[in-house]
Amino acid sequence: MISRISILGTGLLGTSAGLALRATGFPGSIVAWNRSPEQGRLALEMGAFDSLVTDPIEAALASQVVLLCVPIYATLDFMEKLAPVLGTDQLVTDVGSTKRVISEAGTRLFNQSGRAAFLPGHPMAGKERGGATLGDANLFRGAVWLFTDDPKAQRSPQATELVKEWRQLVQSIGSKVIDLDPARHDELVSWVSHLPQFLATALSALLEDQVGDAPELKDVGGRALREMTRLGASPYSMWRDIALTNTEAVEHALHALEQRIAHLRENLRAPELRDEFEQANRFRRD
Amino acid sequence: MISRISILGTGLLGTSAGLALRATGFPGSIVAWNRSPEQGRLALEMGAFDSLVTDPIEAALASQVVLLCVPIYATLDFMEKLAPVLGTDQLVTDVGSTKRVISEAGTRLFNQSGRAAFLPGHPMAGKERGGATLGDANLFRGAVWLFTDDPKAQRSPQATELVKEWRQLVQSIGSKVIDLDPARHDELVSWVSHLPQFLATALSALLEDQVGDAPELKDVGGRALREMTRLGASPYSMWRDIALTNTEAVEHALHALEQRIAHLRENLRAPELRDEFEQANRFRRD
Repeated sequence: MISRISILGTGLLGTSAGLALRATGFPGSIVAWNRSPEQGRLALEMGAFDSLVTDPIEAALASQVVLLCVPIYATLDFMEKLAPVLGTDQLVTDVGSTKRVISEAGTRLFNQSGRAAFLPGHPMAGKERGGATLGDANLFRGAVWLFTDDPKAQRSPQATELVKEWRQLVQSIGSKVIDLDPARHDELVSWVSHLPQFLATALSALLEDQVGDAPELKDVGGRALREMTRLGASPYSMWRDIALTNTEAVEHALHALEQRIAHLRENLRAPELRDEFEQANRFRRD
Repeated sequence: MISRISILGTGLLGTSAGLALRATGFPGSIVAWNRSPEQGRLALEMGAFDSLVTDPIEAALASQVVLLCVPIYATLDFMEKLAPVLGTDQLVTDVGSTKRVISEAGTRLFNQSGRAAFLPGHPMAGKERGGATLGDANLFRGAVWLFTDDPKAQRSPQATELVKEWRQLVQSIGSKVIDLDPARHDELVSWVSHLPQFLATALSALLEDQVGDAPELKDVGGRALREMTRLGASPYSMWRDIALTNTEAVEHALHALEQRIAHLRENLRAPELRDEFEQANRFRRD
């Protein structure tokens, strides 16, 4: 049934989604829009979609599924613009990294009589750097794709079918689907995604202060240091919206980590250090 | 000149050193000892050395170079036992992860009239799990091998030549040699090696508390989470000696990180967050 998809935003995720759909034989048409036409053309040349359009709303109007692959606040802006103009036989879905604010907007603006459907989504895939040129048809293979759908959504039979088919397409490109409540989603990712990122940023910034003037000494840390600071390359532009839309959960996770590090620091010479290592070992056991 | 090496301790580093020397065509004989003969036999079967001996002191007496590949306190024990019995034409070197305590023992027990030479060494290579079976002839390729030699060491011409040749052998197996003062070594590794390890331990232990009962949710974090917690698998047995012999420097680094995380946490909604990301980006720029 899905034969026309528009991808709004052709950064790493939008480009990779187009490439992945093509690689798994999606037979329909894919059009795309990007704020920077230059980046959009790069993705077009990579074969991520059939054509690049200049008007995102026009593209959305002509599609059955609109995939929003822009930062969180840009996603919210598009939702405001699209909700009044789309029809009940259309589906909007997204890839935003926090889901409480977006899901609330979805319930307020979509999923009701006379409105299109909205399915909040979040693929747990990415790289520390963005951009179309890093697009990868296999980016979502083996990754979890989270959905935080509204159980009270009112949808037309066509929209219900589009939701079902989009979930199947996501699985066809290699992702494992998990459904969560939006608040639980934001709490979970504050631990397993946002905490590691903000931690890597703090560690990298600290090490830049300490050994940044002696580049030859960065080699000393080897693979372990490279891994622990890889996410330090992540751009502020991508994480600002996450910090603003999941602040309390991230604050809580960071504060818990500060306390855990302090506990370890205070026990470097004590038997409790063994307990901390053993508890950490358990996390890596499975 | 070096034709007889004994490796005391055939864990990951000892086994890998033997394999690397063989792979680069070292023509001399290599004998080894291990506390657990079973692990020693595994390394022998992998071709890491020519023969396994039961008496480490006897093996050392018959060697020109003794490579200590045991934990830090075991290294110090061997140094006490070997210093009175070895001759001035012999060299003892090690791979211990902290160097202040070991270098002090080297100056006190070796590197003086009538005594063998001691060269404190520290290859910045390893894995989060140890053991002979993970031994790898390429473990040291591209890694930095630190030395913290004593500029006041008194050595026989033969011992001086052994030191020079051992440094060449280390380079022949692919390592880049860097010389440091022992105190500077311990401070540097507290930032680029010990801090990442203890941090990964604290993070992994915290996450085990938070999501350990829901293994399916560990997948959600993807590659970033796997990398940030890989060192969480490191055993206490390996890190206890490091915590005990570099306590102050590690305490200082951990405390600085706690403050840095708190600063980031307090600024999640503020422009300072951009500064932290940009400083972190600089660390990863080179």
